Amino acid sequence: MENKNESITPRDVDFAKWYTDVCKKAELMDYSSVKGFIIYRPYGYRIWELIQEKLDAKFKSLGVENVYMPLVIPESLFNKEKEHVEGFAPETLIATIGGKDEIEDHLIVRPTSEVLFCEHYAKIISSYRDLPKIYNQWCSVVRWEKTTRPFLRGSEFLWQEGHTMFEREDEARHNALEMLEVYDKLGRDVLAIPFSKGIKTNKEKFAGAEETYGIEALMHDGKALQAGTTHYFGDKFAKFFNISYLGRDNKLATPYQTSWGVSTRLIGALIMVHGDDNGLVLPPLVAPIQVVIVPIMMKKPEVLKKAHELLKILKEAGIRVKLDESDHTPGWKYSEYEMKGVPLRVEVGPRDIEKDCYVLVKRNDGKKESSSEKDLVNNVEGLLRLIHQEMYQKAHQFLNSHIKEVRNYEELKEVADHGGYAKAMWCGDVNCENKIKEDYQMTARCLPFDQHAYDDKCVCCGKKANKVVLFAKAY
Amino acid sequence: MENKNESITPRDVDFAKWYTDVCKKAELMDYSSVKGFIIYRPYGYRIWELIQEKLDAKFKSLGVENVYMPLVIPESLFNKEKEHVEGFAPETLIATIGGKDEIEDHLIVRPTSEVLFCEHYAKIISSYRDLPKIYNQWCSVVRWEKTTRPFLRGSEFLWQEGHTMFEREDEARHNALEMLEVYDKLGRDVLAIPFSKGIKTNKEKFAGAEETYGIEALMHDGKALQAGTTHYFGDKFAKFFNISYLGRDNKLATPYQTSWGVSTRLIGALIMVHGDDNGLVLPPLVAPIQVVIVPIMMKKPEVLKKAHELLKILKEAGIRVKLDESDHTPGWKYSEYEMKGVPLRVEVGPRDIEKDCYVLVKRNDGKKESSSEKDLVNNVEGLLRLIHQEMYQKAHQFLNSHIKEVRNYEELKEVADHGGYAKAMWCGDVNCENKIKEDYQMTARCLPFDQHAYDDKCVCCGKKANKVVLFAKAY
Repeated sequence: MENKNESITPRDVDFAKWYTDVCKKAELMDYSSVKGFIIYRPYGYRIWELIQEKLDAKFKSLGVENVYMPLVIPESLFNKEKEHVEGFAPETLIATIGGKDEIEDHLIVRPTSEVLFCEHYAKIISSYRDLPKIYNQWCSVVRWEKTTRPFLRGSEFLWQEGHTMFEREDEARHNALEMLEVYDKLGRDVLAIPFSKGIKTNKEKFAGAEETYGIEALMHDGKALQAGTTHYFGDKFAKFFNISYLGRDNKLATPYQTSWGVSTRLIGALIMVHGDDNGLVLPPLVAPIQVVIVPIMMKKPEVLKKAHELLKILKEAGIRVKLDESDHTPGWKYSEYEMKGVPLRVEVGPRDIEKDCYVLVKRNDGKKESSSEKDLVNNVEGLLRLIHQEMYQKAHQFLNSHIKEVRNYEELKEVADHGGYAKAMWCGDVNCENKIKEDYQMTARCLPFDQHAYDDKCVCCGKKANKVVLFAKAY
Repeated sequence: MENKNESITPRDVDFAKWYTDVCKKAELMDYSSVKGFIIYRPYGYRIWELIQEKLDAKFKSLGVENVYMPLVIPESLFNKEKEHVEGFAPETLIATIGGKDEIEDHLIVRPTSEVLFCEHYAKIISSYRDLPKIYNQWCSVVRWEKTTRPFLRGSEFLWQEGHTMFEREDEARHNALEMLEVYDKLGRDVLAIPFSKGIKTNKEKFAGAEETYGIEALMHDGKALQAGTTHYFGDKFAKFFNISYLGRDNKLATPYQTSWGVSTRLIGALIMVHGDDNGLVLPPLVAPIQVVIVPIMMKKPEVLKKAHELLKILKEAGIRVKLDESDHTPGWKYSEYEMKGVPLRVEVGPRDIEKDCYVLVKRNDGKKESSSEKDLVNNVEGLLRLIHQEMYQKAHQFLNSHIKEVRNYEELKEVADHGGYAKAMWCGDVNCENKIKEDYQMTARCLPFDQHAYDDKCVCCGKKANKVVLFAKAY
């Protein structure tokens, strides 16, 4: 048996070490024998399934249709786009042998599937009646990364990629913003993560996109994490791939395109936003186990009997609950499920049974509540809701206290040193972005939608500025 | 717009052509630019999602935990197994370039993930407390096939692969049979397909397995299709991969292993078992659209108004319903949704509204029923159940009428010529299997669990025989 109960590196001693400790000890993942290709263990994969469930239901309610595109892209097709759009050329994994034979047109393992969707759309779109197309796929993609970290940057990761075609420009522009809102709401209502959202600078936007929007989360160490993006492409790719349709006016027209995606990076965000020195802290809605029942003095027969009764009651109420009857000590179990971030622990011992008063311990702040058996479901449901709110508020306070309006380069440096976002005025010149990156390793995370200028000088060059930007160090 | 409404090749003229016509015209799939890698279009992918939903819920109720393993396997690891187990060595797709560089240990795109699971199990199993492990993954796999057909044999296909480890042999043996039963029940209760199930001969079993069990479906052209398998491995692989645990008796022991899987082949089975000359016929439980509402004389305002009311009523009852308001004629729509196999059509015209009597047309036999608005949900639900039963019964009758007890080689030939299963006595000698395959292209599909010998001579060599085998031509 694994020793699951070892202590982990404290967050403030070595945040990176703490992170990988949690990934491993909470049994979210394991390394495989190929660098950058991780194993999503049941506990980690279940979090992803729960995120998928919520997001996919939302997608379907918005008319998104799921498809599955091939795993591989012929190099000739792939390069066609690369020549067209410079910039996004991820390092790829390339298959050259099929069966025993060399493959003439090498096959790129998909790093993203734009070209496949475009090629398919060119075949199936011919009339305005065929629009809109709002397709999505859940799959894994491969990018040959040099530096990898579980969930944050992998040679393989899981994601969803939506690719759409619309008749009108305004529909497509609306879709890019609508999907950003879907992601933002996922953060607020499901992950308990407040995202900062906005539009990307030209430097930071997806190559080929007219606009890129992003949601950014702030990690405990003060670094930002891009957690999802949506893109508006105009009709550039559509034209390039000869996608056209006969319009309502009987004339040939080109459709407008968007794409959008989130990935298993969200699991990384969950860990780094909510975790603490005892391990993972999971928001109830994506917790594989929402409640763990720990029996005390298990050898007394009434204890396990009652524990099973409570298990049944909670299960029937639709709560994801586990009873740990293993022969470990209660203390071992407390640490184990703290490490795993289980939102609520219910203790069942002889005295609790006698008094019909069970101790409920909240993972997020360690506070204890109590409940009779009769009120257990109500109390548990209420506490799970409360835990979500408290986690969101805590993250929100952390975020708010880590956004600093800066008015000069010195103040910008201070934020760089201490972490968090520097809200700064920017002239719009990429040279300033480059200088800030070189001097302070900070990048423009986004231009928030609320562009309330509070100064008129660029934080970097001092020239006239009317853009508000969030700068931060980022993963 | 695609012309979706063209006629298709009749089944009895050219079954293979009929099949690909249906795949394309019902918009289940499309070809990509890489041979054998198909695009699962929304309508086809949704069928797979519905199969996944049912099966995954069943898995979870049995304690199966989902994981995700890497897409690639180092060639050295892959060959380790290949040397150990001869036989199953699918042609593979091999990645040799990562980034710009040659990869030293080439990476095989997974054709199946046994070795990855075994390698992982060796790391995480150390005590009897870690057992059982009942893991599954939903993913795509790649086998470099020369001859490919949509859903039946692809270079890439979607599947689930379960891989387990148990403390005791009897648990593992039980698991292999239990999962076979899960698949069988999926056929009966969800796909409306009666499977023939049984144990595979040594020749047909999965290389390395001690026992392979299979479910076989009989297609309309009289050929069998292996629709799923489960395997009992004993402790052979576990020993080979050094998977061991400290037992309850404090001694080191080796666990027992199974694996099991079904794939998007099931979609192929659905098409070929239920389809007819008008296209697809889908069993209601996996039909992306269970009911289509077709408005008649759509320009009369009361028609669309009522159609929307009925849409709402059915939607709220949890039925997957679509209202087609496009500007096609009703006749076009009838053909379109027949092609797509939608189980039930509701027609809404001015006269129907006036009489409060709507025509419901069953896809499986074209029979018409009628319903008032008030009873619509009840009638639709009842008809959907009835359609499932009728489809199952029809397939079952077809199956029963295509199993022929044969007593000599001539009778075996007759079945080979006319299609269906030959139930035959077999001596157990692989030479007879080989001869039957060579002479008649028939293979031993399975030894049914009910081994009621009705003769004592092998159908091939005439020697003493006590095994009952189903022989058939197969996909």
